[in-house]
Amino acid sequence: MPRLTGIFTPNIVTLDDAGDINEAELRRYTEWLIGKGVHGLYPNGSTGEFTRFTPEERRRIVAIMADQTRGRVPILAGAAEANVKETIAACEYYHSLGVRAVAIVSPYYYKLSPASVYAYFHEIGRNTPIDVTLYNIPMFASPIDVPTVRRLAEECPKIVAIKDSSGDLPHMMRMIAAVRPIRPDFSFLTGWEAALLPMLLIGCDGGTNATSGVVPEVTRKLYDLVMAGKIDEARELQYKLLTLFDAMLYSADFPEGFRAAVGLRGFRTGVGRQPLAPQQHEQLAALRNTLQCILSESGFADEPLGGCPPQSSAGTTPAEVGKIVEGVIAELKRRGIA
Amino acid sequence: MPRLTGIFTPNIVTLDDAGDINEAELRRYTEWLIGKGVHGLYPNGSTGEFTRFTPEERRRIVAIMADQTRGRVPILAGAAEANVKETIAACEYYHSLGVRAVAIVSPYYYKLSPASVYAYFHEIGRNTPIDVTLYNIPMFASPIDVPTVRRLAEECPKIVAIKDSSGDLPHMMRMIAAVRPIRPDFSFLTGWEAALLPMLLIGCDGGTNATSGVVPEVTRKLYDLVMAGKIDEARELQYKLLTLFDAMLYSADFPEGFRAAVGLRGFRTGVGRQPLAPQQHEQLAALRNTLQCILSESGFADEPLGGCPPQSSAGTTPAEVGKIVEGVIAELKRRGIA
Amino acid sequence: MPRLTGIFTPNIVTLDDAGDINEAELRRYTEWLIGKGVHGLYPNGSTGEFTRFTPEERRRIVAIMADQTRGRVPILAGAAEANVKETIAACEYYHSLGVRAVAIVSPYYYKLSPASVYAYFHEIGRNTPIDVTLYNIPMFASPIDVPTVRRLAEECPKIVAIKDSSGDLPHMMRMIAAVRPIRPDFSFLTGWEAALLPMLLIGCDGGTNATSGVVPEVTRKLYDLVMAGKIDEARELQYKLLTLFDAMLYSADFPEGFRAAVGLRGFRTGVGRQPLAPQQHEQLAALRNTLQCILSESGFADEPLGGCPPQSSAGTTPAEVGKIVEGVIAELKRRGIA
Amino acid sequence: MPRLTGIFTPNIVTLDDAGDINEAELRRYTEWLIGKGVHGLYPNGSTGEFTRFTPEERRRIVAIMADQTRGRVPILAGAAEANVKETIAACEYYHSLGVRAVAIVSPYYYKLSPASVYAYFHEIGRNTPIDVTLYNIPMFASPIDVPTVRRLAEECPKIVAIKDSSGDLPHMMRMIAAVRPIRPDFSFLTGWEAALLPMLLIGCDGGTNATSGVVPEVTRKLYDLVMAGKIDEARELQYKLLTLFDAMLYSADFPEGFRAAVGLRGFRTGVGRQPLAPQQHEQLAALRNTLQCILSESGFADEPLGGCPPQSSAGTTPAEVGKIVEGVIAELKRRGIA
Repeated sequence: MPRLTGIFTPNIVTLDDAGDINEAELRRYTEWLIGKGVHGLYPNGSTGEFTRFTPEERRRIVAIMADQTRGRVPILAGAAEANVKETIAACEYYHSLGVRAVAIVSPYYYKLSPASVYAYFHEIGRNTPIDVTLYNIPMFASPIDVPTVRRLAEECPKIVAIKDSSGDLPHMMRMIAAVRPIRPDFSFLTGWEAALLPMLLIGCDGGTNATSGVVPEVTRKLYDLVMAGKIDEARELQYKLLTLFDAMLYSADFPEGFRAAVGLRGFRTGVGRQPLAPQQHEQLAALRNTLQCILSESGFADEPLGGCPPQSSAGTTPAEVGKIVEGVIAELKRRGIA
Repeated sequence: MPRLTGIFTPNIVTLDDAGDINEAELRRYTEWLIGKGVHGLYPNGSTGEFTRFTPEERRRIVAIMADQTRGRVPILAGAAEANVKETIAACEYYHSLGVRAVAIVSPYYYKLSPASVYAYFHEIGRNTPIDVTLYNIPMFASPIDVPTVRRLAEECPKIVAIKDSSGDLPHMMRMIAAVRPIRPDFSFLTGWEAALLPMLLIGCDGGTNATSGVVPEVTRKLYDLVMAGKIDEARELQYKLLTLFDAMLYSADFPEGFRAAVGLRGFRTGVGRQPLAPQQHEQLAALRNTLQCILSESGFADEPLGGCPPQSSAGTTPAEVGKIVEGVIAELKRRGIA
Repeated sequence: MPRLTGIFTPNIVTLDDAGDINEAELRRYTEWLIGKGVHGLYPNGSTGEFTRFTPEERRRIVAIMADQTRGRVPILAGAAEANVKETIAACEYYHSLGVRAVAIVSPYYYKLSPASVYAYFHEIGRNTPIDVTLYNIPMFASPIDVPTVRRLAEECPKIVAIKDSSGDLPHMMRMIAAVRPIRPDFSFLTGWEAALLPMLLIGCDGGTNATSGVVPEVTRKLYDLVMAGKIDEARELQYKLLTLFDAMLYSADFPEGFRAAVGLRGFRTGVGRQPLAPQQHEQLAALRNTLQCILSESGFADEPLGGCPPQSSAGTTPAEVGKIVEGVIAELKRRGIA
Repeated sequence: MPRLTGIFTPNIVTLDDAGDINEAELRRYTEWLIGKGVHGLYPNGSTGEFTRFTPEERRRIVAIMADQTRGRVPILAGAAEANVKETIAACEYYHSLGVRAVAIVSPYYYKLSPASVYAYFHEIGRNTPIDVTLYNIPMFASPIDVPTVRRLAEECPKIVAIKDSSGDLPHMMRMIAAVRPIRPDFSFLTGWEAALLPMLLIGCDGGTNATSGVVPEVTRKLYDLVMAGKIDEARELQYKLLTLFDAMLYSADFPEGFRAAVGLRGFRTGVGRQPLAPQQHEQLAALRNTLQCILSESGFADEPLGGCPPQSSAGTTPAEVGKIVEGVIAELKRRGIA
């Protein structure tokens, strides 16, 4: 099998007004992503809020998307369940659906030692019928350190890749230096598109990037430019991508900003499963406006009716200003002051 | 309803050799805890590894324990599920079993803002048929800050308590100062028995303490001594409790040390659900020896066959020495050096 | 020599309008503190902004205070300088002034390993002519862990105490358990008055608490109540102390809040050495009002001319409200929005 | 004035056996660095242990190096002193020596808010006679956030650059995006050579990198390759640099590893000012051997007499193995076990 390469989209899940999976819209969104040129799909990732669905729902999401995709692009299915036994069962099911591989996040909630992280993935690696991508996201889950990646790569042929969302560039280099000599087929994917260009330049094979679910055209083009050695053009895109990424990531609890932006691309994302306080609804409305302005600059959305501020040459981005004002007003209201 | 008070035991779950729930042993353990004088039981806590069981298993654990308890002591049932809808359903089920209240951990994996934490608990508080205890454990889950506790206490009569495992004493005082004036029925329970005595002295109503599943005699006595104003005797017990707590907590990934200690009290705890690496099995064997020595000093276990070291007057406790030596040897082995 | 006991005041340094040491006012403040019953004085602590003075100024501060005190209360002189050689020279100078002991903060800026921290204090401990107090403040400097304290206590008779500002109660118990059996003369002082009562109850000998420079009457009384076993009265004072401490600590960059409060007790504290932005001056004015209200409740200051809000039974304290409003307005101004 | 560009060397200070500045060796080292092609020099940086020298010594270090350099390369002199007044005085002195600019680290020890950091640098920026480089090193000092950099760049023409040692690549991009449009003369230097190549590729003007004091040939070549657009060759060098950097940084308390490596290039670095414990001396000896092997691979040192292990194709680097073994033995000894 060739290495996993390219940009995979960790998609949000479209919901209906009752908060249930909106299958028709999920199919339409899947179709759109494929049409826009994403290299692969990645249901049940962090962006897909896998923890907020039941085991049955997680299976159904992958089944819908695999059915819609019909093998046109590879699917990486998030398969983490409550324990190893349940996770293996999920692996078997996803294998039966014909997806390319699964991605399994390191154990979370408890903070595990490297030895436990190793033992967990080793047990899975020995029993999975389908290729496994390790998923390192130290801000949310127990970290997978370099010696552990190296050891798993050495002992488990079924473990074929790591998705790393730490955003730490030297860490990525350390992993590549440790693993590539012994496993040339092992793939390194970054989950931190804020550094997508430099990650690709130091040897990453691609990324699983939530922003590709919002502007798949941009992430695809950035990837193609890097492959073609056009660094200057790629750098310009990377700076634009960072502005959008920051606005989506830091202006609302993840992944609400990404859900809002997908809505602006024309999809009914529905009511999220994490309840929001009244001031958060106001903040989201403001963020939506900011995102629409950012997207309209590149022609991915119409300008909002009220127009957009002149492109700030100042350090404060529109998203920042919006965030501050709403945050302030909401805080004052909450305290009963304003 | 009177305030929740006293020491609740967040119990481990006894498993069989296949890793399935060992119902007979769980009933025997429940019976033993009640007999030893714990004030209440707390299934599906962090000690009970709630994240490693399926939704069905979590329900079964509470059902078994409620059936065995038959109302002799109150049960606080961990009820956190994938999302609010599922959590409410669990609340309804536990309500039907007649437990005293549920405990719901703050959302984890994602790091949520105070507004989201508020919205989450507010939604639950408005829809639960059963009393709710908030569960704040910032090392594992999104923190519940003081204004959020205050606001939830003010707006949701069904929210009747908070279990706080931060171990931060002034934080506990800030919560008590903010909430007690408006909700005298609201209970404050500490999850950090390393500071149980001082927490009780500054106004806590009790605790949910994993150590009470190992030495329920000691935690009960400490509680009774504080209630009787016998601070000097209580202080002595608190220092002993700290030694045991540290050995169980810091010598193995939580909650393996607690599971090992429960085994030393005569229960078959079975094979844990989190796989262990070979060196971890060796470390656990050494820890078991250390714990047996600590427990034997107070008559809670026989001395191990090989005897125990003279009680260290040195800063390094037996648990520490054991931990260092095994850690070192295992590390050397792992690196192929020894 | 008996153990160091009681409440030592880490005093702020009174400055004149040019930012130079105001000797007359420093003498007056020293006199006032002694008159109010503090057990000892502690110049050149963190509250005293030792890092913001030159080596010559640090010596002068201690010289002035030692001259004013004339042995009526013991002085603990902060003696940390650029390196061991300079620190030893400072120890010799302070010894010549007749102070009781020096306090030496763990190396800061660089984050040192326990071995380096040990080597540093060991070198000082072997060469100092005067008793040394270790100063552990992990939020600002390299932490001093329990085995290091134990080892230094064992090997260096001149090291006679530790001031611990971690606020971690079980950590304090671990140190006491490790050191007291081998060094009954070793003293444990807490730097975290938010937990002064419980710290004293689990065995601390006293504290070095910045709040005692503002309300020496209260910290002294709290200490005396605990010594007399009057826990209920002491608890009430501890809650009040916490309110004041929180307002001073969290409403401005440390130690500006403490400097403002000392000003309200009638001392000219002068212009601080750390420059402030315009919005910070506004925030300090608001904080001063809040502190005046808190102090006036206990008769330590007159009510401000504008009066005070009714004592909030709500979770939001006056200090919090003030902080939020000013923070918000200043932020808006800074961004050019308001 | 053109922007600051290229690789500046934050040099260690050569000491004699008494721990005093070894002027002759410092001159010889300065000469060697210039001869090897560094673009500039940077005395009194973190690598130069500025905090461990007296104010007089800091001045003397710069005076010696400026005298030796005679304008052949620009000097960036670390000028942070106890407070703004002292810092301005140092700026004036360095200005009189004819150095190109000063570098001033953000206030440390206390953790300051962005407003205080702004006020501090603004006060300096208004009064300095010489150009100022901001120095952001959040692991040691109060962070300088993007809006603060932007605002200072806007208001203070004398502030002409930032050295950022966070190693956070998107953070560097955010600063460049915020400042470059309004201050095209403002320079961005990275202090994190683990990511030197990608930092240069996204727009950095250069770096101040301790590794350039050890292998100035390599950092210079890497810089030249990037400027020439030879990314593939540069990438190879970057991977080698990372191996050396990691060994120096993570095998001993900073900057002892760098001092040891400079010694291997033929300079008498002398006895460091931070005392070392016996086990640390053993660890340094082992590290020296490892570094000699790494340096000999590129011809920068002879192989050690005992030879070097075959180049590990494994994830564990020689430095790691050495570190583990010595750490373990030292720990066992320290605990009295081995």
